[in-house]
Amino acid sequence: MTAFFSSRWAEVHEAVTEAPDRTLPQGFRAAGVAAGLKSSGAPDLGLLVCDAPEATSAARFTGSGVLAAPVLVCRRHARLHALRAVVANSGSANCATGGRGMDDAVKMQGAAAMAARVDPGQVAVASTGVIGVPIDTGKVMRGLSRLAGTLRPDGGDELAEAIRTTDAFPKCAYLDVDLPAGRVRLAAQAKGAGMIQPSFATMLCFVQTDAVLSGETADLLLGVCVKRSFDRISVDGQLSTNDTAILMASGASGVAVEPETESEAVFGQALDALLRQLALDIVRDGEGAKRVGRVVVRGGDPQGVERVARAVANSPLVKTALHGGDPNWGRIAQAVGAALPGAAPLAFDVAIERVPVCSGGVAVPHDRGLLAEAVSGLEVEYEIGLPGEGAETEAFFSDLGHGYVSVNAEYTT
Amino acid sequence: MTAFFSSRWAEVHEAVTEAPDRTLPQGFRAAGVAAGLKSSGAPDLGLLVCDAPEATSAARFTGSGVLAAPVLVCRRHARLHALRAVVANSGSANCATGGRGMDDAVKMQGAAAMAARVDPGQVAVASTGVIGVPIDTGKVMRGLSRLAGTLRPDGGDELAEAIRTTDAFPKCAYLDVDLPAGRVRLAAQAKGAGMIQPSFATMLCFVQTDAVLSGETADLLLGVCVKRSFDRISVDGQLSTNDTAILMASGASGVAVEPETESEAVFGQALDALLRQLALDIVRDGEGAKRVGRVVVRGGDPQGVERVARAVANSPLVKTALHGGDPNWGRIAQAVGAALPGAAPLAFDVAIERVPVCSGGVAVPHDRGLLAEAVSGLEVEYEIGLPGEGAETEAFFSDLGHGYVSVNAEYTT
Repeated sequence: MTAFFSSRWAEVHEAVTEAPDRTLPQGFRAAGVAAGLKSSGAPDLGLLVCDAPEATSAARFTGSGVLAAPVLVCRRHARLHALRAVVANSGSANCATGGRGMDDAVKMQGAAAMAARVDPGQVAVASTGVIGVPIDTGKVMRGLSRLAGTLRPDGGDELAEAIRTTDAFPKCAYLDVDLPAGRVRLAAQAKGAGMIQPSFATMLCFVQTDAVLSGETADLLLGVCVKRSFDRISVDGQLSTNDTAILMASGASGVAVEPETESEAVFGQALDALLRQLALDIVRDGEGAKRVGRVVVRGGDPQGVERVARAVANSPLVKTALHGGDPNWGRIAQAVGAALPGAAPLAFDVAIERVPVCSGGVAVPHDRGLLAEAVSGLEVEYEIGLPGEGAETEAFFSDLGHGYVSVNAEYTT
Repeated sequence: MTAFFSSRWAEVHEAVTEAPDRTLPQGFRAAGVAAGLKSSGAPDLGLLVCDAPEATSAARFTGSGVLAAPVLVCRRHARLHALRAVVANSGSANCATGGRGMDDAVKMQGAAAMAARVDPGQVAVASTGVIGVPIDTGKVMRGLSRLAGTLRPDGGDELAEAIRTTDAFPKCAYLDVDLPAGRVRLAAQAKGAGMIQPSFATMLCFVQTDAVLSGETADLLLGVCVKRSFDRISVDGQLSTNDTAILMASGASGVAVEPETESEAVFGQALDALLRQLALDIVRDGEGAKRVGRVVVRGGDPQGVERVARAVANSPLVKTALHGGDPNWGRIAQAVGAALPGAAPLAFDVAIERVPVCSGGVAVPHDRGLLAEAVSGLEVEYEIGLPGEGAETEAFFSDLGHGYVSVNAEYTT
């Protein structure tokens, strides 16, 4: 339908349209600035503010055992159901920075609260960049002073620019959703291209709406939609220390999304499509990627399908084949076997873009020319069947090409 | 000491010397031939025969849930403690080939038995190459007829040539070992460069000795040494469907390696160094690799150190940093955190080439120039300390560079 929804794997409800302008939902203002954290001089500090005192929110964070200071500060010192501001920087992850890193993140939270004129406990802090390097809080303070004067309803794009690291393109969206209860707006800014295999959360993604949402509804919807989007993607199977996803609702439209109503269902579907497309954008951006794969695994049991989906999505052999437009399904077989040790002989099925290539563990004759053409597109779907019924999952992944190596062999400390 | 032992991580006992000639241990003959299985016309079929009727042997195979036909035939139809021949081919993995693949592998076993003049149950079959494509047994039969007439004591190099796929160099060794009980020879041929993260076994590796070994001793020593070599390496974290390691002892030297003797200890150390160096050669060959990393993880518990070692060894971010000679230890921190979800705050230590870069989870100031120089060598060692004592493990891994992408994006079905 639009420029934003480009993937067949994000189903867009008819109530959703791309907004005619790039304005945040009512009650939100944002801005971004080059604070000097990046040596390139590119924008690296953003601020998002909700002017509605009764705003509600929800958040999800990385499941890593090594947490960055901003994640710890959010979890310990922020009221995650009543956030009114987000300060986010690129250029430093503020991770493995010890007590000083915690102090710095708290300082950022306090300074952002002053700039946003809200309570420090209502400010979330998010950072992305190099691990193990302290953040220059002097630059952050000066940047925040400048940001305070430039916050505006059409500042979402600037915020999205400020959180980019190796992203080849910014990721933001402005949607109108016609709920039975009335029209609401939904906007989002996201970043992510590498170190991507979120677990219970994502890289950085900020979502705003002017719908009236209870804290519980915001939490429920964000949780469900993150599980179907950022939790299902992998660029390189690498879980970040800083993943953060935040949904904020200003309520300024006056349109209420009540639990268990049609409006909630439609809003949920709109949020789902939004996060799935953003997740797919991150995969598509995957540091040099040119194709996106989707693997769907059916049968077996929940643990088994999850392991197989992750093994395929993270296999460098599958990813290089995807990159080369090579229908080498033997690599799928290899990944399936590795994920299910001791299962031999395993009667598994594989189909690529609906062409069956393996049935019951045995190669199926097929038109190789047709298959080669099918895997040369921008999106390639792999379906895997395991013995038994009962479970199903999916994962989205990028290919592995020279671009990934270039970006990561040369991304200096 | 020699051209073969090139890594500081393979400790070579003083009783071990590289043999002055490239002759197999007494009682063994081998040969290789271009049977036409590879379209390139390169050698692709090899035969190894032990002329001693009382030969003993031991074998290990992949732990994959998808097993190739030759692995199944070995496990079901071969007397693995009394093998007298190995037939091995490259060009086809004979995997996911169903009942026909099993018939073909049994045919190979029978034809090799005729060529070697031994019982079919004393023949192991090993294949490597593309998955899902039937093997051309006509070519194998004709190749075996030719091989029968060319078997000879200095045919080990030919066998090693015949099992190469994407290997940049052949992997074989001829060692003399001066045991207290007398001198024995130890030889090996191996292949492997990609799809490498063996589990309880390896790619293809055939080891011969003229020592007198009981079947139990052969099994014990092979098991222990495989665990310290092929089981500790990763090129791309991908477990193959065809991994096979076979040790055969002809006893032709008359020198006995009795259980719990000094001779057994020295022989075991020689075998250990041999397999570790071959494993390191495979990592070094890792499809375009230019550096080898070793990660040592200490502390925590056995499960934890294993997960952390695998996470670091398989992290494309760590591997691209190794490739780029980039001392970006933040990627080590990321891998540690991903391997230990929920462990935050985690007081972990990281040292690279003995330079401490992180202590108790916090960055340690260090001389970055010195560190950059330290990681620019051919071998880089990473040490990780986890809270607690009690466990330790290691893993060897290759870097990830453009070569891997080129090899794998263009390795066609």
